Amino acid sequence: MPYSYLSHLECSKCGKVYDANQPWNVCECKGPLFARYDLELAVRHLRPESVARRPGSLWRYHELLPVQKPDNIISLGEGMTPMLPLSLLGDYLGLHNLFMKDEGLMPSGSFKARGAAVGISRAYELGIKKIVMPTNGNAGAAWALYAARAGMKAYIVMPEDAPPITKRECTSSGADLYLVRGLVSDAGRMTSAAVADYGWFDTATLREPYRLEGKKTLGFEIAEYFAWDAPDVIVYPTGGGVGLIGIYKAMLELRSLGWLEGGRLPRLVAVQASGCAPIVKAYAEDKLVSDFWENAESVAFGITVPKAFGDFLVLEAIRETDGCAVSVSDEEILLWQQRLAREEGLFVSPEGAATAAATSQLVESGWIRPQERVVLLNTGSGLKYPHTFEATDIPVLNPGDELFVN
Amino acid sequence: MPYSYLSHLECSKCGKVYDANQPWNVCECKGPLFARYDLELAVRHLRPESVARRPGSLWRYHELLPVQKPDNIISLGEGMTPMLPLSLLGDYLGLHNLFMKDEGLMPSGSFKARGAAVGISRAYELGIKKIVMPTNGNAGAAWALYAARAGMKAYIVMPEDAPPITKRECTSSGADLYLVRGLVSDAGRMTSAAVADYGWFDTATLREPYRLEGKKTLGFEIAEYFAWDAPDVIVYPTGGGVGLIGIYKAMLELRSLGWLEGGRLPRLVAVQASGCAPIVKAYAEDKLVSDFWENAESVAFGITVPKAFGDFLVLEAIRETDGCAVSVSDEEILLWQQRLAREEGLFVSPEGAATAAATSQLVESGWIRPQERVVLLNTGSGLKYPHTFEATDIPVLNPGDELFVN
Repeated sequence: MPYSYLSHLECSKCGKVYDANQPWNVCECKGPLFARYDLELAVRHLRPESVARRPGSLWRYHELLPVQKPDNIISLGEGMTPMLPLSLLGDYLGLHNLFMKDEGLMPSGSFKARGAAVGISRAYELGIKKIVMPTNGNAGAAWALYAARAGMKAYIVMPEDAPPITKRECTSSGADLYLVRGLVSDAGRMTSAAVADYGWFDTATLREPYRLEGKKTLGFEIAEYFAWDAPDVIVYPTGGGVGLIGIYKAMLELRSLGWLEGGRLPRLVAVQASGCAPIVKAYAEDKLVSDFWENAESVAFGITVPKAFGDFLVLEAIRETDGCAVSVSDEEILLWQQRLAREEGLFVSPEGAATAAATSQLVESGWIRPQERVVLLNTGSGLKYPHTFEATDIPVLNPGDELFVN
Repeated sequence: MPYSYLSHLECSKCGKVYDANQPWNVCECKGPLFARYDLELAVRHLRPESVARRPGSLWRYHELLPVQKPDNIISLGEGMTPMLPLSLLGDYLGLHNLFMKDEGLMPSGSFKARGAAVGISRAYELGIKKIVMPTNGNAGAAWALYAARAGMKAYIVMPEDAPPITKRECTSSGADLYLVRGLVSDAGRMTSAAVADYGWFDTATLREPYRLEGKKTLGFEIAEYFAWDAPDVIVYPTGGGVGLIGIYKAMLELRSLGWLEGGRLPRLVAVQASGCAPIVKAYAEDKLVSDFWENAESVAFGITVPKAFGDFLVLEAIRETDGCAVSVSDEEILLWQQRLAREEGLFVSPEGAATAAATSQLVESGWIRPQERVVLLNTGSGLKYPHTFEATDIPVLNPGDELFVN
């Protein structure tokens, strides 16, 4: 049996089919290309029990990933991150089954490593030598590190205001980093121009088909954790939205395989910051695509994306699963970031904290009910965002001083 | 069968036995206490094949850990970190089987989470409510987060110069943090005084028996990765040295169980910074204990420990396994930190980089031979040490500017 059941690429807009054995970016119609697999082969030959016996990495789902040969896998030990019960905060919110999947325990400290691991491995397999991408920081860091491991050259453009540590990850791993006095949308226009000028391979969000496949493993892992009975709700901090699109794609594939208990899909929730909420606005206005969000700004820098290339796919995933989209303020985000550390010992990114803030709203409105199984996605480690944690007054003592108690 | 095979505590110096069902710190003779297990029971009832089928966390070894009831486990998803082949650096050094175990993928971004997970879980089980510890940063951060999750109060004392992010981990999780204008040895004297004054439970290195048990799982995981045929060499960055003592204890236990191929132990290497190398000096002078290292200083802050409480145990572990102790300069550390990022995509702590620098020395001297299987331990994520990564000149562009190529 083949290692990967990849069969072809298909445009998510117009349906046009492409040969998966050569590198592609987007369709002629500009639509993102989706990887498609021989699911009939999988129905006949792949069993959840055999997946369960495999090593704890995202590559345990290799039949449904695009890499053809295990030798081409570029790995830094990615996947199978923990699902942590939030008992105290659950009690506080009146939820009996609240969980956080902690993607801070990924290489480079964020869930972007999923897309980078699969995207770089497949690019390596297809013979690509130079990649370029715009980023809000974490994706660039992850792709730069995996590119270094693959011996590929990475060109990264990020906003000047991106988290400082992500810049050091890029430069240390030998990437060429450019900062821009602007937002990720400005960076994106500049990388597009560079693709035209230099012929570098464009790895911007949904501009090549395989980053999505890496993010898809989030959905596989969540479903496997719940013994293939999908949770009721998954709450996802949404910038470009690839993770949410990926989770939806994963669930549809699992349903096609007949692995998903009762064929039930989780309700997908897109969370955005109130300072940059184009998806929330489009959802509320029942639109199929979002408008560019002017003057975008939020402490949750990773989801400060004024216009996502895959907005129509995010909106589709939300609607098709009876999900929703909500926005939360920076104040709520910082409050919940503190609560997660203090009550649950979880040191999370502001994006991750946004999911807890959103859940609080959705419980209050009755949209989430007490018995429902709810998964919050922490997309990155708090270690990457020191500036978002309060610098409280810390006493500085001399050697031998007594420790006074407040 | 019991969940844990813990039978009693035993002094590592004088052999006196203590009841494990109540809290203890050190022996009357001041020696560290070791947890002992009913290994005969384990020989009869525990099989490597059954361990292999368990979930990917350090609790898969629960029979050989001290926690009596699974309900008492305080978990943030710790353990089973990746073992990454270093092919390019291996080629460069002339080693055919070089690996790095990456403990950056642990809760709180460092291997200290192992000791904290087991130490806090057992303290919780024994009814302890308040803990105190001196730290160079990472241990305090880990224990503060696990204490928060357990609903316990933590008092932490660290040098003013400790990595800034570790201070935020402590305060965010509700610990009382004190900084001292001095070294971890100064912090240790102050926590000892506080233990006497306030009756807080002392969780300083080897001042209670269970942190070591958490660190021991490093040895179990390494052995399991190599199918219970221990690697030839394990290279460990040594401050307090609990990880090295723990790996040695793990290997002895596995040998007693008959699990270790040929009963062979790995040669254990203690690496220190040349600015603070008390163990290296004691090893070179063939002494059983180390002297206090004056004016200690190194970029590898985590291993800047002038006098380790368990120094005699570290020296014993090195000698009994035909290991050795070597020191490396800050320049070498920073050079290898860059090399690991650039060649292997690994963004590691300076302590982790020190192991690569030491390995380079040991290959050159012939102490490590080309075919040997060598494991470097990266004890923490580079994300916690932004200041150790070069801030190179990064171009700052305006929106629409062209990306020039250097």
